[in-house]
Amino acid sequence: MKISIIVIGDELLLGQVTDTNSGMIARHIAPYGWSVESVETVPDSHDQIIAAIRRAMHRSRVVITTGGLGPTRDDITKAAMLEVFGGKLVENAEVAANVRRIMEGRGHKLNALTATQALVPDSATIIQNLCGTAPIMWFDTPDSTLVAMPGVPAETSQMFEQEVFPRLFHRFSADTHVRHTTLTVSGITESDLAERLATFEDDLPPYLHLAYLPQASIIRLRLDGVHADGALLDRQFDENLSRLETLCADLLLYRGGHTPAEELLTRLKAEGLTLATAESCTGGAIASALTSIPGCSEVFRGSVVAYCNSVKRAVLGVDATILHKYGAVSEPVVIQMADGARRTLAADIAIATSGIAGPGGATPGKPVGTVCIAVATQNETVATTYRFGGSRELVIRRATLTALALALRATLPQSPHP
Amino acid sequence: MKISIIVIGDELLLGQVTDTNSGMIARHIAPYGWSVESVETVPDSHDQIIAAIRRAMHRSRVVITTGGLGPTRDDITKAAMLEVFGGKLVENAEVAANVRRIMEGRGHKLNALTATQALVPDSATIIQNLCGTAPIMWFDTPDSTLVAMPGVPAETSQMFEQEVFPRLFHRFSADTHVRHTTLTVSGITESDLAERLATFEDDLPPYLHLAYLPQASIIRLRLDGVHADGALLDRQFDENLSRLETLCADLLLYRGGHTPAEELLTRLKAEGLTLATAESCTGGAIASALTSIPGCSEVFRGSVVAYCNSVKRAVLGVDATILHKYGAVSEPVVIQMADGARRTLAADIAIATSGIAGPGGATPGKPVGTVCIAVATQNETVATTYRFGGSRELVIRRATLTALALALRATLPQSPHP
Repeated sequence: MKISIIVIGDELLLGQVTDTNSGMIARHIAPYGWSVESVETVPDSHDQIIAAIRRAMHRSRVVITTGGLGPTRDDITKAAMLEVFGGKLVENAEVAANVRRIMEGRGHKLNALTATQALVPDSATIIQNLCGTAPIMWFDTPDSTLVAMPGVPAETSQMFEQEVFPRLFHRFSADTHVRHTTLTVSGITESDLAERLATFEDDLPPYLHLAYLPQASIIRLRLDGVHADGALLDRQFDENLSRLETLCADLLLYRGGHTPAEELLTRLKAEGLTLATAESCTGGAIASALTSIPGCSEVFRGSVVAYCNSVKRAVLGVDATILHKYGAVSEPVVIQMADGARRTLAADIAIATSGIAGPGGATPGKPVGTVCIAVATQNETVATTYRFGGSRELVIRRATLTALALALRATLPQSPHP
Repeated sequence: MKISIIVIGDELLLGQVTDTNSGMIARHIAPYGWSVESVETVPDSHDQIIAAIRRAMHRSRVVITTGGLGPTRDDITKAAMLEVFGGKLVENAEVAANVRRIMEGRGHKLNALTATQALVPDSATIIQNLCGTAPIMWFDTPDSTLVAMPGVPAETSQMFEQEVFPRLFHRFSADTHVRHTTLTVSGITESDLAERLATFEDDLPPYLHLAYLPQASIIRLRLDGVHADGALLDRQFDENLSRLETLCADLLLYRGGHTPAEELLTRLKAEGLTLATAESCTGGAIASALTSIPGCSEVFRGSVVAYCNSVKRAVLGVDATILHKYGAVSEPVVIQMADGARRTLAADIAIATSGIAGPGGATPGKPVGTVCIAVATQNETVATTYRFGGSRELVIRRATLTALALALRATLPQSPHP
């Protein structure tokens, strides 16, 4: 099934807000064999909203709109919907109760503007928005289905994944069985991995598909399957997934679509271990990735961002002679940084980085993009040197993801069959 | 002048890449009185690219396409351009030399695929891409101008700002004089600021416009002016800017469109001062914002991310009895954290944060969103307590920007006329 998305809002065309909803929708539906055919962004304009809706309904069986709803903009978008789908605005008691509940939960009084949100077209089926005040409106015509959703990303993603897509899938793909599993791997380039998996991909039955989702220094591999025969799908999917895992055994970090930071925290929490970082070139980016995850405080003890050598010496205990002999960007120094972080921050595992993010700072033999990373565990401290390409931002991002991947590899549960 | 943007690429419709180019273009042209009328995202499909180009040219005098260029995709996009604008592919010697230069600079050999990039439609005017291998193609028809640009954000922004937009502006707005200045303010809500500036906005001549660009806890105010009479524009613009600065004197952090982190580093560098942070709830986000800026190492010494109380005590020297008496999220504790960071990291200025980012962690009297921030200078250490709303991500972002704004305020040059 191919769908079209219409993104509504002046703020998007002014560049004040970046649309992330259409990407969220695309990523969520891909494993089900659905795809996005086009995304169009239009201003809060009656005529342009109507023209975009008509174009999208002409193109796709299913159309999603995001945004253009909310107390101050309702009138334009709802008037456009009435013009396309007919009907009139009526007060919906359930929506009114939901608006009241949400506003009271936020400690606000219900004002006249938010009360207008309870007025909805009687030509729409209403889905309650559990995360916000703007209701979701579902319109059907003989040829198309359009679902109008709010635009706040946290609301849109939760409501699309939990309420809207399950209904769309049930309506249009009820006879379809779906399987998907993500493997996160590291330590290989995308082209080398594609070469290794070429025969595997050629041998896949037509209803199974392997997607490559590279992210700086890690690659997610997602095996998708869609078929009317659930038993056949299960058998083929499991066989091929097992073959894929064997082919990637030396690269596999973990199963599942979560982030490396989430996986690392989950794994360490399960083993009762704590984590710390000592960051030079990543400058707090690893700590920031870890602390963006709720509940991280059970595992993460903290970080020393040692951006100058005196902090490396004074706080992390790096030896001045080692610093002088090998330079700050060196394996002996990151090893001492990692050991120092374990000791100073009293953690079981420590990650340390030191590198040249650029654009300046290169020295002979150490070009921009040179990054040393060490992981210290109870058993050993191991350092590796990388040469990353790209801008300062990309070098920092690659160093961050590589450091998390190294920590994951260092904490991999020992395989029972070596 | 209203322009349309076409974003080309399967990777965008799969949600693997988020389009940031259209927002960059919108933000860049707004101060010149230009605006984006629509943005359409289409796959790497001959027919869909052609249809989108025809729609956009029907709608707007100027059309920009981004993406769809590069060694593996050139054929589809260039074939579409040939079908719309006529002509045939010819080898362009300057493009060939540029491709060779770029590839050699990256240490790669020129292969057959990249060599095809030197084939360009003879119906286009070619603008050399100084940052990448895909040339920029400029097509004119009697009614429209279309500029086809590469899609890599770093290339697109540099080439749009430096090469493409100046030519477009010269072509279509040559008789226009333009002025714009950004003021960054903090310590007020957007609605309170709008109330304060209501009369000022009402009094503005029609060719001056004030734009509000709120960002979590700071607000950028941009005064824009466009007029054929340069002398009149200059006089009116300067008068009104001066009036605006007087109206916002107590809120003003700095003039100019750069980020608070950039401004803080620039200001401290000019005064020869160094900076450190001690972060609990922001978890390294302030350090990460500072270290994302090239050359920060001259000012930024480092950070202690003290996510647990024992690190606050052991590394930053926070008093155990103070921690026990007031709790980690308290003004006495952030004051000791900031003082400890100044001492431990040997910095002139230190910023410290401690708060409850949520969703868990609330205690009686300290709901989620409570954040204490302290700034320590050579003269004094001052703490303030905030209650931020929103998700964990938003609380961290608001705390980060507020902390940078407080540090900017603490380091404001003393006004010569009090």
